[in-house]
Amino acid sequence: MTGRLSVIGIGPGDPELLTLKAVRVIKESPVLCVPKGREEGSSLALSIVQKAVTLEGKEIIEAHFPMRKTRGSQEQPGGTQESAKDELDTKWNEIAGALLEKLKKGADVAFLTLGDPTIYSTFFYLYDKLLQLDPGLNIQIIPGVSSITASAATARISLGLGNESIAVLPANYLDNLRTTLKSFDTVVLMKVNKVLDEIISLLQEMGLISNAVCVSRAGMGDETIYRDITKIKQEALNYFSVVIVRK
Amino acid sequence: MTGRLSVIGIGPGDPELLTLKAVRVIKESPVLCVPKGREEGSSLALSIVQKAVTLEGKEIIEAHFPMRKTRGSQEQPGGTQESAKDELDTKWNEIAGALLEKLKKGADVAFLTLGDPTIYSTFFYLYDKLLQLDPGLNIQIIPGVSSITASAATARISLGLGNESIAVLPANYLDNLRTTLKSFDTVVLMKVNKVLDEIISLLQEMGLISNAVCVSRAGMGDETIYRDITKIKQEALNYFSVVIVRK
Repeated sequence: MTGRLSVIGIGPGDPELLTLKAVRVIKESPVLCVPKGREEGSSLALSIVQKAVTLEGKEIIEAHFPMRKTRGSQEQPGGTQESAKDELDTKWNEIAGALLEKLKKGADVAFLTLGDPTIYSTFFYLYDKLLQLDPGLNIQIIPGVSSITASAATARISLGLGNESIAVLPANYLDNLRTTLKSFDTVVLMKVNKVLDEIISLLQEMGLISNAVCVSRAGMGDETIYRDITKIKQEALNYFSVVIVRK
Repeated sequence: MTGRLSVIGIGPGDPELLTLKAVRVIKESPVLCVPKGREEGSSLALSIVQKAVTLEGKEIIEAHFPMRKTRGSQEQPGGTQESAKDELDTKWNEIAGALLEKLKKGADVAFLTLGDPTIYSTFFYLYDKLLQLDPGLNIQIIPGVSSITASAATARISLGLGNESIAVLPANYLDNLRTTLKSFDTVVLMKVNKVLDEIISLLQEMGLISNAVCVSRAGMGDETIYRDITKIKQEALNYFSVVIVRK
């Protein structure tokens, strides 16, 4: 019997924002897999979960996720685009192979991911590889509380009401930002820590600066809300920072 | 001592998708307030919650929410726009007043809302009224699993990876749909039950029909995934239906 892979959104950081289902499935899984990247270390996912579930006796697999090559990002690994892409592919295949080995031995595996699995989770890079290796794999995806709605809740902002439209743009979206700000009722800007100054300039120019709120580390125990984003020093922000522009 | 108002996202329908915090705060609150509209009856919110928490001995306030007047919607109440607006205002003020009365007596009140409170929840209409009546009110907003990510999880679709952009458009967005489909990586169309045929035509014309998936009643126990949305009969869909277009 092949085991089941459960991909679990563990929420933004507060262990109380785990769902009942996440807690039950983590309890039932003898093997946990946690992504370990540069910015969201496995220690973070594990430290959140172990405040709600005892991890004693569980096997922990740390998946060292390769850096994702992104247009215009400074996070590119060296080498040419093609060789970097090959490197990534190899790495994803390795992780998928390791997971599959556990599953083939009949162990249920819980793959922990911050926030919600469908919102910018690295899991989906792995998903394609897993299906290539075994199309019949038993996978369930358990949604969680996203950092986006946790940020809005912290700032007490509705992201949308009635017929309003919402746009979510992650880092490096600056090309389309002006158009999006014009046509959407709410714009959520993710991972703003590296581009905050440019965002501030644009919002000032468009007369929208007072519509913006920045929330850093929502639901992580040390969250901060900035109602005047011009007062933020860009270098003081971290990866888990979101700007919500609400017209 | 004035009580605290907790606005709680109870998730899309599966009682196991309640968060630990939602369960704790509901347990601790002697008074529950549930919105009762035409489409999301209080019985639904209560029936979800009572599968996870015993409601015995709790006072239940049913807030009969007025219909929201929306551009181009057929759900408008009669009368001129102005008189309808006044009617809505009066109704919201009544509900806010009733809640405030409980809070002033020192009772903690839990306001239950499907999905996440910041995603198209009627609560935010009430929020402004409450703050007008008492700006110092003790309110906490507890995020929940949104029906959007629950739908994506059910269909096993990532809504965004890396630097991809996501747009969420509720009913009556058809004016901007073409532009949005062109410029966003993922477009989530909410409450598609009344406009599905128009959506299908546009997606066919744009060559995007095979990129669309429809999920109905995600996380409600009787969810359906349609991978070929041209085979759906519009009248078979209900309010809790989402189309995800992923390029």
